[in-house]
Amino acid sequence: MSNGTAVLGLGDIGPEGAMPVMEGKALLFKEFGGVNGFPICINARTADEVVDFVQRIAPTFGGINLEDIKAPECFEIEERLRASLDIPVFHDDQHGTAVVTLAALWNSLKITGKKMEDLTVVIAGVGAAGVAIGKILLNAGIGDVIGCDRVGAIYTGRGEMNSAKEWFAANTNSSRKMGTISDVMKGADVFVGVSGPDLITPADVRSMAKNPIVFAMANPNPEIRPEQVDGLAAVMATGRSDYPNQINNVLAFPGIFRGALDANATDITEGMKLAAAIAIAESVTDAQLSPDFVVPSVFDRTIVERVAPAVAAAAVKDGVIRKS
Amino acid sequence: MSNGTAVLGLGDIGPEGAMPVMEGKALLFKEFGGVNGFPICINARTADEVVDFVQRIAPTFGGINLEDIKAPECFEIEERLRASLDIPVFHDDQHGTAVVTLAALWNSLKITGKKMEDLTVVIAGVGAAGVAIGKILLNAGIGDVIGCDRVGAIYTGRGEMNSAKEWFAANTNSSRKMGTISDVMKGADVFVGVSGPDLITPADVRSMAKNPIVFAMANPNPEIRPEQVDGLAAVMATGRSDYPNQINNVLAFPGIFRGALDANATDITEGMKLAAAIAIAESVTDAQLSPDFVVPSVFDRTIVERVAPAVAAAAVKDGVIRKS
Repeated sequence: MSNGTAVLGLGDIGPEGAMPVMEGKALLFKEFGGVNGFPICINARTADEVVDFVQRIAPTFGGINLEDIKAPECFEIEERLRASLDIPVFHDDQHGTAVVTLAALWNSLKITGKKMEDLTVVIAGVGAAGVAIGKILLNAGIGDVIGCDRVGAIYTGRGEMNSAKEWFAANTNSSRKMGTISDVMKGADVFVGVSGPDLITPADVRSMAKNPIVFAMANPNPEIRPEQVDGLAAVMATGRSDYPNQINNVLAFPGIFRGALDANATDITEGMKLAAAIAIAESVTDAQLSPDFVVPSVFDRTIVERVAPAVAAAAVKDGVIRKS
Repeated sequence: MSNGTAVLGLGDIGPEGAMPVMEGKALLFKEFGGVNGFPICINARTADEVVDFVQRIAPTFGGINLEDIKAPECFEIEERLRASLDIPVFHDDQHGTAVVTLAALWNSLKITGKKMEDLTVVIAGVGAAGVAIGKILLNAGIGDVIGCDRVGAIYTGRGEMNSAKEWFAANTNSSRKMGTISDVMKGADVFVGVSGPDLITPADVRSMAKNPIVFAMANPNPEIRPEQVDGLAAVMATGRSDYPNQINNVLAFPGIFRGALDANATDITEGMKLAAAIAIAESVTDAQLSPDFVVPSVFDRTIVERVAPAVAAAAVKDGVIRKS
């Protein structure tokens, strides 16, 4: 379900324009997860309008995948729907991306020998994906996160923030670092880009800690191109299919919904998202693991077979199973 | 699309309960008309709520079939949606039934030798179907219509009427006949029942004009059973599949939507409905026509091939074609 207010790479193009992405998404759900998705694009802009619409249509579906809805409305919409409905509601732009990013990071740590709790991660872009990546990294025990938007680093007391950024400021950047993206990248272990093209330079990557990990996921043009960090980054990933290490949420959402539906889950919990990330990460064998292979291929049909049962088991563990 | 407030034979059972009917409807759309329907059942009871919902979801679809929505809300809902949307909106409980009833009546007139403009028709049940049947008969040049609800005959100035019945009173029963269903059936040419089981008796049919036509369409139990009017009625039809002359809207809706979509129609006009009724009636050849065969079989796959082009041509004639 989309209202077309934040279509990847295209922006606020409205419901009719959003339809091709939603149709493609429904095909991916079916092809990889055997999930019968139906694409719905709606005339609705405010959180109240979208929440009201989804609550009314909920009896028709076993779960709702929210898609291409702009921040910060997307956070309130998902939160209110999760609280009010007894079926899974999942904003894939947030959590699908976050799950695969975490999986890629875990495998990158095996290569660099670093530990999750020691890492400082800079996230460029504090929209739907950036906020969700921050949350899942905190849940996974990350050392610290520093978010950057167009204004610069996010810290408590800064101006020009919406409610999602206020939350972000309160839960990240414990040393209240300020300044530009270049300023905060100095000494950081990981760069995660979910912003726009050509945001950072090779000099920024050189200023990071030893063996830096760079996930430049802006699409189609990443924050920095892989050839620019050749020899600089220990691991480089993008959102593109024509470079190694494509961080693509198709690795997550078919298995997450397949598992949630198989378990008759009423929600998709943080535990279920972590279980999905672990299953994706562990699908890369020690023999396969390399700086150019920290996430499996998007065409690997065995991924959903690992993710779905892991998610279903986590749903049982978290007690979010429909009784009747 | 249904809100489950008036499911045929079951009543106000809510959106979840309405789903099996809607799923079956989607299958019939696909099987007979090649129309890709998707069943949507919603939490929405008032006209405002349903109208708002359909306006929001409209960008997703080429047309909207409304179904199993109770009267009188169904009239306002369809009217407001037709006025505000640029895709066909069609309440099948009203117009599908009305189109097939008119087709059956035309062919019945060939058998009885009566003329449309001379007929008096009594309609039992002034809900969604009854009102629409009254309207299409008036558009087809019927002599007069007398509607009856639980209170009795509908006439101007009577009490206990909603807005749809006020319209009905103002446009039918020109001689202001009053009384019970038995009272107004005396001397009538046609009885059309869209009410409930066992409403009328053989004595009522005997009191009608010579060669009476009886369409007792309450489902599953008609207003009077065919064996009760054996030898009394010139033509007897029901909504049931186990008697001759099944008046079933599957003869109409697949071809109406197929034709409307093929023509890029923005509306389904009265002209398009009349064209559908003519196409259905004319699909019964002179050789086939008999008191037991005034409408074609619901399994006759050639019907949609006649209805769709007739409806598309009527859309062009009525100028309701999308330009771009």
